[in-house]
Amino acid sequence: MNYTSVHDIDSVSEWVDEALALKKNPWKYVELGKQKTLVLLFFNPSLRTRLSTQKAALYLGMNVMVMNFGSEGWTLEYKDGTIMDQGTSEHIKEAAQVVSQYADIIAIRSFAKLEDRIEDYREKVLNGFVRYASAPIINMESCIGHPLQALTDAITIREFVPIEKPKIVLSWAPHPKALPQAVANSFVEIMVKGGYDLTIACPEAYKLSPEVTGSVSYNHDPEEAYKDADVVYAKNWSSYEQYGQVLSQNQKWQISHAKMKLTNNAKFMHCLPVRRNVVVEDAVLDSKASLVIEQANNRTFAAQLVLKKILEHDSKKIDVL
Amino acid sequence: MNYTSVHDIDSVSEWVDEALALKKNPWKYVELGKQKTLVLLFFNPSLRTRLSTQKAALYLGMNVMVMNFGSEGWTLEYKDGTIMDQGTSEHIKEAAQVVSQYADIIAIRSFAKLEDRIEDYREKVLNGFVRYASAPIINMESCIGHPLQALTDAITIREFVPIEKPKIVLSWAPHPKALPQAVANSFVEIMVKGGYDLTIACPEAYKLSPEVTGSVSYNHDPEEAYKDADVVYAKNWSSYEQYGQVLSQNQKWQISHAKMKLTNNAKFMHCLPVRRNVVVEDAVLDSKASLVIEQANNRTFAAQLVLKKILEHDSKKIDVL
Amino acid sequence: MNYTSVHDIDSVSEWVDEALALKKNPWKYVELGKQKTLVLLFFNPSLRTRLSTQKAALYLGMNVMVMNFGSEGWTLEYKDGTIMDQGTSEHIKEAAQVVSQYADIIAIRSFAKLEDRIEDYREKVLNGFVRYASAPIINMESCIGHPLQALTDAITIREFVPIEKPKIVLSWAPHPKALPQAVANSFVEIMVKGGYDLTIACPEAYKLSPEVTGSVSYNHDPEEAYKDADVVYAKNWSSYEQYGQVLSQNQKWQISHAKMKLTNNAKFMHCLPVRRNVVVEDAVLDSKASLVIEQANNRTFAAQLVLKKILEHDSKKIDVL
Repeated sequence: MNYTSVHDIDSVSEWVDEALALKKNPWKYVELGKQKTLVLLFFNPSLRTRLSTQKAALYLGMNVMVMNFGSEGWTLEYKDGTIMDQGTSEHIKEAAQVVSQYADIIAIRSFAKLEDRIEDYREKVLNGFVRYASAPIINMESCIGHPLQALTDAITIREFVPIEKPKIVLSWAPHPKALPQAVANSFVEIMVKGGYDLTIACPEAYKLSPEVTGSVSYNHDPEEAYKDADVVYAKNWSSYEQYGQVLSQNQKWQISHAKMKLTNNAKFMHCLPVRRNVVVEDAVLDSKASLVIEQANNRTFAAQLVLKKILEHDSKKIDVL
Repeated sequence: MNYTSVHDIDSVSEWVDEALALKKNPWKYVELGKQKTLVLLFFNPSLRTRLSTQKAALYLGMNVMVMNFGSEGWTLEYKDGTIMDQGTSEHIKEAAQVVSQYADIIAIRSFAKLEDRIEDYREKVLNGFVRYASAPIINMESCIGHPLQALTDAITIREFVPIEKPKIVLSWAPHPKALPQAVANSFVEIMVKGGYDLTIACPEAYKLSPEVTGSVSYNHDPEEAYKDADVVYAKNWSSYEQYGQVLSQNQKWQISHAKMKLTNNAKFMHCLPVRRNVVVEDAVLDSKASLVIEQANNRTFAAQLVLKKILEHDSKKIDVL
Repeated sequence: MNYTSVHDIDSVSEWVDEALALKKNPWKYVELGKQKTLVLLFFNPSLRTRLSTQKAALYLGMNVMVMNFGSEGWTLEYKDGTIMDQGTSEHIKEAAQVVSQYADIIAIRSFAKLEDRIEDYREKVLNGFVRYASAPIINMESCIGHPLQALTDAITIREFVPIEKPKIVLSWAPHPKALPQAVANSFVEIMVKGGYDLTIACPEAYKLSPEVTGSVSYNHDPEEAYKDADVVYAKNWSSYEQYGQVLSQNQKWQISHAKMKLTNNAKFMHCLPVRRNVVVEDAVLDSKASLVIEQANNRTFAAQLVLKKILEHDSKKIDVL
């Protein structure tokens, strides 16, 4: 069993319930991961993911080995049949098989490079590991998805927004640098899968991949979109159409106190790190409406749930054999 | 309870006694830290602190997560109200709150930059964590202090200098690079707090902050200062007055065999790393008078004592609730 | 007891038997390393060694602290009597003694620089630690040897080549960059020590150190050498005579499917990472004859055996005291 995208969740609502139960009693399954090893492979920086995934593993009694693949390992080759006489030292085929032998579960972070959409959306690193590894793979943010974050978000909405069918607005916000679409993609996917009422608020030029958004409605008016919202989920991403470009830094898309007043006392969410007074005003981030710290906390329980499900799935597999 | 400076010690002599008791039986409290997590955040290089603090946590049965914040995380912003459209990606306000949720104790190393005294002495990194974190904070060397080293030094003097009121000389020594005042500051503070007989030997231009030294006496003669010394504690620091500058590399301040002969068979101490034959002659460092290796060993027990006190303090807090 | 070279093995065949027994029951000695700490010091990149050595320690119940000495610590000085007023901050003499106090076993990786043969073959890093450390030292690849890899190779041959006296060919292969001789050296040493039938196949200019090879026979014909081989062990190394130089990239030395057909259905071995279609053709690496993944797996059990022997040796020493 892998956890590479939101599509690996069978029931959002059941997973959310289970994660909230874990949060109440996080050490309950500390025997489950005994003598099991989680290997975390980072190709990019990480704060929350690095620490919360380790913490989740500790709660399950697992051993953890952390590796910054970029600086500590070898440069990987991904193409089949290449003559490797240039900069790459090791093929993903060997790397994935080898790491699998030291790990019971492998978790990988590898961001989009935002240079070539086809290349990024091919997910060569994540898919390379999935293809060649014999251990289960967890996506700790790939080029096109961040499903641990999305699960966290669903958990946080359930925990802090006690409304049966809340109106969720995913709002694009300005940012000086080009950022990936991964968080937004997975958030849309889990909202759709969970049957939430979702609107994407963004400039026309920032529409996400139609394969991700399907029939989700867009609103390109940064004020109108906020009306009646119960949750404003802010995130910047670079353009999908003009791939990886920063087309606008229009401040009317900043999440402001004034705009939050248009909502139904909406909660504010963001995956962090967040640029204050660029993406969102201090007045919003520092208000009681902000869930960002609680959200980061829930990263631990999203990761713990995924690890637990994989460990249980695997032990069942062994029982059958 | 935090341990950010020597001022957090209530009784130097009691802490020293307790640390020496731990050293005799380091695994005695291995149950105390069970299911507790220590997060080490490094903004600068570290050998002794990195390994000894981990070892101390292991002795207490704690889990440890180590992170090189500079290379593995995001660039932090420290100013309130900033429009974060430049190089910084995450505000200390979020970072500190978030890490607190994954940690039972957070330890931080962040050196002085030696460019702007006011800026350095404001301790924005350490104080930023203290202000926003909900977990206890340990200082693993900040801009202006290194209280784990100072506690180590008091332990080492007690262990190896069996004299009721030893005469301690903190001797400035030459060095090719500008170094922070942190170790010297905290050493002065613990000697004063512990009621030791301390003299600071240094060139006039190398006087430390008057707020740190108070009424401690200086001696600017590199030979006279050594008379009757029981301990020579060597350390280079850059100028406090002409902040961060290297004003002298005068070799007469090197700790030499000849100068050690002027003492009362003094022990030699240094926090390491030390530049041989610049700060101190091989003949001194390789003599029986040198305590530097024992000193480094005691880093473990200083850290263990601080962790133990915080764990015990916190569990009391929980009991009261 | 140290494990710095193949010469530290008393009986290759007994060690191989023990390692294969560990592989069958890796958690059997999980109490042996309880409350013991392994410190891994990396001066160079590492994937297999980094993860397999940690995994081996986990199997023995040890705590592990990993440190990238180059980026996380201080620049070391190795010369005696130096005036350290240049780039180096800490002498190996202090570093080795200090780390020994936090570690029950220290493992070190420090590659050849390939600039000066005398300098490299002096092994200043490994030998510096051996000289000054009070803890046992394990070589995780030094300038001139990689004995954990060599032990792995002997284990793998025993496990997968069920022939009483197999014919082993160590075959040089082309590579665009200058690589050390460490793996080849230790492989030759363990084959000789284990009494194997070994031939070294390489261009004339790539003969290894005569001190390493002794009376082992060379074959400089890349086809003739393969005849009747039961194992082809491929590895590139740079010239020993014209030290560190890449003298040939002649593709006739590539391990090809055609050449493998000349053998006695030989198994293919390589320590990894391997450059596909430069060192070896895909057709060989992806064939059933390839043992490279199994070989990487056995790194864990070679490391575990070495750790176990050191732990047992040390506890005997303590019993005697």
